[in-house]
Amino acid sequence: RINAERLWDSLMEMAKVGPGVAGGNNRQTLTDADAEGRKLFQKWCEEAGMTMAVDTMGNMFMTRPGTDPDALPVYVGSHLDTQPTGGKYDGVLGVLGGLEVIRTMNDLGIKTKHPIVVTNWTNEEGTRFAPAMLASGVFAGVHTQDWAYDRADHEGLKFGDELKRIGWVGDEEVGARKTKMHAMFELHIEQGPILEAEGKDIGVVTHGQGLSWTQVTVTGKDSHTGSTPMPMRKNAGLGMARILELVDEIAWSHAPHAVGAAGHIEVFPNSRNVIPGKAVFTIDFRSPDLAVIKDMEDRLKTGAKKICDDMGLDVEFEKVGGFDPVEFDKGCVEAVRNAAERLGYSHQNIISGAGHDACWINKVAPTAMIMCPCVDGLSHNEAEEISKDWAKAGADVLFHAVVETAGI
Amino acid sequence: RINAERLWDSLMEMAKVGPGVAGGNNRQTLTDADAEGRKLFQKWCEEAGMTMAVDTMGNMFMTRPGTDPDALPVYVGSHLDTQPTGGKYDGVLGVLGGLEVIRTMNDLGIKTKHPIVVTNWTNEEGTRFAPAMLASGVFAGVHTQDWAYDRADHEGLKFGDELKRIGWVGDEEVGARKTKMHAMFELHIEQGPILEAEGKDIGVVTHGQGLSWTQVTVTGKDSHTGSTPMPMRKNAGLGMARILELVDEIAWSHAPHAVGAAGHIEVFPNSRNVIPGKAVFTIDFRSPDLAVIKDMEDRLKTGAKKICDDMGLDVEFEKVGGFDPVEFDKGCVEAVRNAAERLGYSHQNIISGAGHDACWINKVAPTAMIMCPCVDGLSHNEAEEISKDWAKAGADVLFHAVVETAGI
Ligand SMILES: NC(=O)NCCC(=O)O
Ligand SMILES: NC(=O)NCCC(=O)O
Repeated sequence: RINAERLWDSLMEMAKVGPGVAGGNNRQTLTDADAEGRKLFQKWCEEAGMTMAVDTMGNMFMTRPGTDPDALPVYVGSHLDTQPTGGKYDGVLGVLGGLEVIRTMNDLGIKTKHPIVVTNWTNEEGTRFAPAMLASGVFAGVHTQDWAYDRADHEGLKFGDELKRIGWVGDEEVGARKTKMHAMFELHIEQGPILEAEGKDIGVVTHGQGLSWTQVTVTGKDSHTGSTPMPMRKNAGLGMARILELVDEIAWSHAPHAVGAAGHIEVFPNSRNVIPGKAVFTIDFRSPDLAVIKDMEDRLKTGAKKICDDMGLDVEFEKVGGFDPVEFDKGCVEAVRNAAERLGYSHQNIISGAGHDACWINKVAPTAMIMCPCVDGLSHNEAEEISKDWAKAGADVLFHAVVETAGI
Repeated sequence: RINAERLWDSLMEMAKVGPGVAGGNNRQTLTDADAEGRKLFQKWCEEAGMTMAVDTMGNMFMTRPGTDPDALPVYVGSHLDTQPTGGKYDGVLGVLGGLEVIRTMNDLGIKTKHPIVVTNWTNEEGTRFAPAMLASGVFAGVHTQDWAYDRADHEGLKFGDELKRIGWVGDEEVGARKTKMHAMFELHIEQGPILEAEGKDIGVVTHGQGLSWTQVTVTGKDSHTGSTPMPMRKNAGLGMARILELVDEIAWSHAPHAVGAAGHIEVFPNSRNVIPGKAVFTIDFRSPDLAVIKDMEDRLKTGAKKICDDMGLDVEFEKVGGFDPVEFDKGCVEAVRNAAERLGYSHQNIISGAGHDACWINKVAPTAMIMCPCVDGLSHNEAEEISKDWAKAGADVLFHAVVETAGI
């Protein structure tokens, strides 16, 4: 079993880097705080005897050697970056849980046949640079590195430039090792309410739901809020409001097998006495069923077009992120279930509601995920919370699944 | 008659200061560009023989002496600040039209009994620092200077600090001269479609409609867009969308005697995969009828409360700006009408749809406004346009109204 106190202490230490304003974290990708978090993780890994490699997307690979020179590594890990008002566990638990697995092996003198690599994937959250899971996506060959380097944040800063600025462009070619992976396990908090409600310690993640991010641009005409008569207005903000209502209707029409909302919303010029001439916002639709996602995308486009036509507005759509629903590797999923069973933890199958680096890595290597509950299912909120026992159960299962897969 | 070419040249010169991105201007109040615009105006006024006084709100008073030492000054002017994506004429025409009146008097050797003061009022637009017409409001005793100094922009910078930073805190006590004003005339573009549609050169502004700015804060709960089930969501962005729709309904119910919209819209944390936990936006309601404004405010509060209660959201309201409908001084209005008549310009009475510094000054001195048409009624847009003939007609009427009021 892993050392729950040590894991918890490390989680609390990491939470001091890039603190939020309400007890959580703001350690967004490629900020100075991200660089500081990486340094701390590197130090801990090196103290645990691991050696570091970094690829050209800034992905960190911390290796503990195996006993068989021909055996491919087993990967564990997740991400250290957070939302702007994020929690202390989303991503971090999977990375430091991986580190705790190594520390426990060191304590117990366990040597595995396969090497173990603890990974920190760059820009999982996708807030500064859309889409989410950007670097694991490039690693898995879903995006090109050039395209990723060219992603711009809200201030126009580019991913490639910011990665360089914080000093974390590695020399290993991204994805070079993707054909040499034995397996990958990602431990993550559920970010939803199911496990807590069902009173289960462990979620055995069999699938991940798919996602579609559509950036919508509604164009009307800036004009004076006071002196423009109602019939002459081309209010892009009002068009947006109607589209947001439509998105809610579409998602409910497929509930509980779909969700939909807009987290990103902007109007221009954003002045109290100017009718917005432009609104830009991103619709997030998700479902475990690809056909449902496609239906929602289609209805969004048709419906938004109709709304805008009726109002004399223009509308454009750009897909800024997305992935299809995922089925994880049966063997790896079985290793997770066996570990939970063996350790006596209550468990159930679960579909991940969020996207994870594991979803992309699953394309290139046998992959599975382990979930632990979180309080009130709350995540992407500084108040995100888990209990020490939940963290322990998750890391124990990760430990056993990894040892079983890596062989003694 | 004024010199239309000279007026136009000055308008085009001023437009080079703080250029926009699409042919208009971004010369927002208390920016470096504002300081530069002020310097240029000061230079032109001094070249025309005027002397400058500046008050503690940064209001600029450029005086041409009169022949009677006991006669109180006649004021003309408007504002040089613009919207972030503003036009070249909104405000500027009234200030440079005032300068052109003085230049024409110089050309013709006209001496008036009353002094003439050309004024540039600080922060008319209210975009950086709400409310609009801030400095003329303090001048007229509607707001205190302390309160005005404490207004913060989007980045938290304070009005008082920014005024100091650009070097335009004057030493004259604000409002000291408000009991010593003979009259005030403001020339402004209509910013609406009526005069152009009616083919009139001049709007004789008899009234100004009232305004109410209510900042609405909807609070829900930040949570994950993927893993939070639809029934558990507290989506402040969706609550906002429903309130925006309500605002539109309320305004239409009183049309054509009211307008309503939101120009300022923000959600937090504004991340694509976080359901907004907070939305902050400002509703702009206007009507020439105070009872209608009150009715719209009441229905907004009741309706928004109901929407938010049904969605499990909290809602708060803050009045961040407003003024009652205005009736301008009958004598000054008559002077404007007489001038248009005498010069042979077509004219009609009009109610100002926008707020103007004249609306506040009307509280402390006999005041009136002159309007000229603008193309397609478009304003608060970089494409705002007027013809040289319209500018000429407006400045001619201003010239005659001022000379009549100031006496020869
Ligand atoms: N786990 C997580 O929150 N990932 C961010 C990508 C997503 O929005 O699902
Ligand atoms: N004239 C003008 O646009 N003033 C700004 C204040 C308002 O919104 O009416």
